[in-house]
Amino acid sequence: MHLADLETPQLVLDRTRLDRNIERLRTRLAPFGVTLRPHVKTNKSADVTRRLGGPDAPITVSTLKEAEYFLEHGWRDILYAVGIVPSKLPHVEKLIRRGARLTVILDNEETAQAVAAYAKDHALSLPVLIEIDTDGHRSGVPPEDDMLLRIGAHLRAAPGANAWLAGVLTHAGESYNCRSHEAIVACAEQERAGAVRAAERLRADGHAAPVVSVGSTPTAHFAESLDGVTEVRAGVYVFFDLVMHGIGVCAVEDIALSVLCTVIGHQREKGWLITDAGWMAMSRDRGTAKQPVDQGYGLVCDEAGRLMTDLVMIDANQEHGILRHRNDPAATPMLPVGTMLRIVPNHACATGAQFGAYTVVAGGTEVEATWPRFSGWA
Amino acid sequence: MHLADLETPQLVLDRTRLDRNIERLRTRLAPFGVTLRPHVKTNKSADVTRRLGGPDAPITVSTLKEAEYFLEHGWRDILYAVGIVPSKLPHVEKLIRRGARLTVILDNEETAQAVAAYAKDHALSLPVLIEIDTDGHRSGVPPEDDMLLRIGAHLRAAPGANAWLAGVLTHAGESYNCRSHEAIVACAEQERAGAVRAAERLRADGHAAPVVSVGSTPTAHFAESLDGVTEVRAGVYVFFDLVMHGIGVCAVEDIALSVLCTVIGHQREKGWLITDAGWMAMSRDRGTAKQPVDQGYGLVCDEAGRLMTDLVMIDANQEHGILRHRNDPAATPMLPVGTMLRIVPNHACATGAQFGAYTVVAGGTEVEATWPRFSGWA
Repeated sequence: MHLADLETPQLVLDRTRLDRNIERLRTRLAPFGVTLRPHVKTNKSADVTRRLGGPDAPITVSTLKEAEYFLEHGWRDILYAVGIVPSKLPHVEKLIRRGARLTVILDNEETAQAVAAYAKDHALSLPVLIEIDTDGHRSGVPPEDDMLLRIGAHLRAAPGANAWLAGVLTHAGESYNCRSHEAIVACAEQERAGAVRAAERLRADGHAAPVVSVGSTPTAHFAESLDGVTEVRAGVYVFFDLVMHGIGVCAVEDIALSVLCTVIGHQREKGWLITDAGWMAMSRDRGTAKQPVDQGYGLVCDEAGRLMTDLVMIDANQEHGILRHRNDPAATPMLPVGTMLRIVPNHACATGAQFGAYTVVAGGTEVEATWPRFSGWA
Repeated sequence: MHLADLETPQLVLDRTRLDRNIERLRTRLAPFGVTLRPHVKTNKSADVTRRLGGPDAPITVSTLKEAEYFLEHGWRDILYAVGIVPSKLPHVEKLIRRGARLTVILDNEETAQAVAAYAKDHALSLPVLIEIDTDGHRSGVPPEDDMLLRIGAHLRAAPGANAWLAGVLTHAGESYNCRSHEAIVACAEQERAGAVRAAERLRADGHAAPVVSVGSTPTAHFAESLDGVTEVRAGVYVFFDLVMHGIGVCAVEDIALSVLCTVIGHQREKGWLITDAGWMAMSRDRGTAKQPVDQGYGLVCDEAGRLMTDLVMIDANQEHGILRHRNDPAATPMLPVGTMLRIVPNHACATGAQFGAYTVVAGGTEVEATWPRFSGWA
């Protein structure tokens, strides 16, 4: 079976690039002596995650559905890296009773009290990380905020207490807005220093707090020091995408994910090729719009994955893509109806989520496997 | 079961509003004597589509997966309203052999020739509409272009020919960019006049071309004349959304779709509420960003669906939503962790696609049903 035999659109995963990306970060982090805990929200697939490490490897998830799916596929050491809310504790308990070593995170006293009470009432051993805000990106407690110690107090080991303070976690989300290598290095240091500082304050207050978890794909690839850090999280690096390319973390040729589509028509006067992959296939993500080079809905490759210079998916309807030369409509090659192309996406997490499976190739157009992936929450 | 019993995020559908929206367009179009052929790409659900009309009713689809699903659920009269490509003809044939009365569309000679040849070789009766471009939005042949007649010639009834020219189709996609009632009326007239003119040219050239199919949710609601039109298509009107509200087609209180989420934390100094519905739940659609009032990722309602004045989902991470007062961070109500809210989306087609089911309510918080919906292409 070859890509040409498939009905489009399809989500194509180049396993050669995937494996290279995985190896790159593994090699880079080895000298630092930290644990890599990949974020599987990007891939949502046991087949992809197995290449990151077998069921004994630690993983990070963004939903309890991911936790449940990966538990069913054998993974045990799972960090749920979105703030827990008390109403989800029965689901967390169910997963732990079924064998998960699940860690939750939180950033406020209300939740810390509720988690401590639930764990005590249900005799549930529940490790907790306090989420630290090191860059103002979204959630978390600033490292110097006294709320940190108040939250810690609710989670203090005590007779009958089962929730326990395992440490701290932060995510340098602002690293996605960096514009240079130096800026990412600075982001990484800010992330590291803030997390380590928070852990030190908790330790000074009598907590063991052994875990210092940091991460984002940009900072994981450029951090110069990880002193005091125990684990690094990253997700999108397994596939990479145009946003990561725009930040300078990868080359376009490293991007392992693309959407296979077919030319269905033309608007010759405008220099448009119309395809059957619209925003439903690419997602509505326009992450490169605020970068120095706006890549539209994606860059265009031929069926074999070779980049076609300056051909861009400039616009999208639900099931229609519009491709055009970046600057000169007259320079768009008027490829015949039926031509298959591959669109490299802005954001692998968003594009991947639009599909129920990966069509796997190894550098060429021969399909070597189909790997299912899941979506949703329930 | 009530919404409060559910793990979030969930896609909530208010059936009361759905039924009202359906009735509104049905009533509006009745005096025009046209067929309403709803576009089911928005809902992708037999349960929703049944409320639009039983299996005898005509429908429009945007993918062959939709055609296949609705055929399996009993619908027969199906218009596939994205330009057919020759490689999809075997799939089209399979659906027709299984009982679908499937119509395809095309806008170029290459495809017309391929369709005519395939239909002849396979003795397949295949009605074809020529797609007309009445506003430069995406695909189609301009009504005055001579290519129209050349395409028609490839589809002319002849001994052994089985593909036949059933008429024309156009979609006033630019109506989504209208800013006033008058502008939509003008768009609707341009759509009607262009489609009717194209059909007249084909008829003058000897084709029967009985079908004149037009439509978009804005033009369907504001067209003042449908003279010469035989059918109207519209999809998003069953749910409506903030983009339609921004155009002036509906009130916020008409929007039947929302995403149920839970407050998981705060950033009090910034006036932020953090929720567990991020862009993965809302989609990345920011369709109101180019409208006069930018609604961020959506407007916020309480659990019962009552709008909370000026509370907006201003930003999103994959599984985090950030809510804030539109203008004054200090005015954001610091709702406790665990509070459930409902976010009204920019674009119902995009948000719906992120979920595998509708949680159905009838104006309140009691869940009266769960209706599955599908996604993807394969």
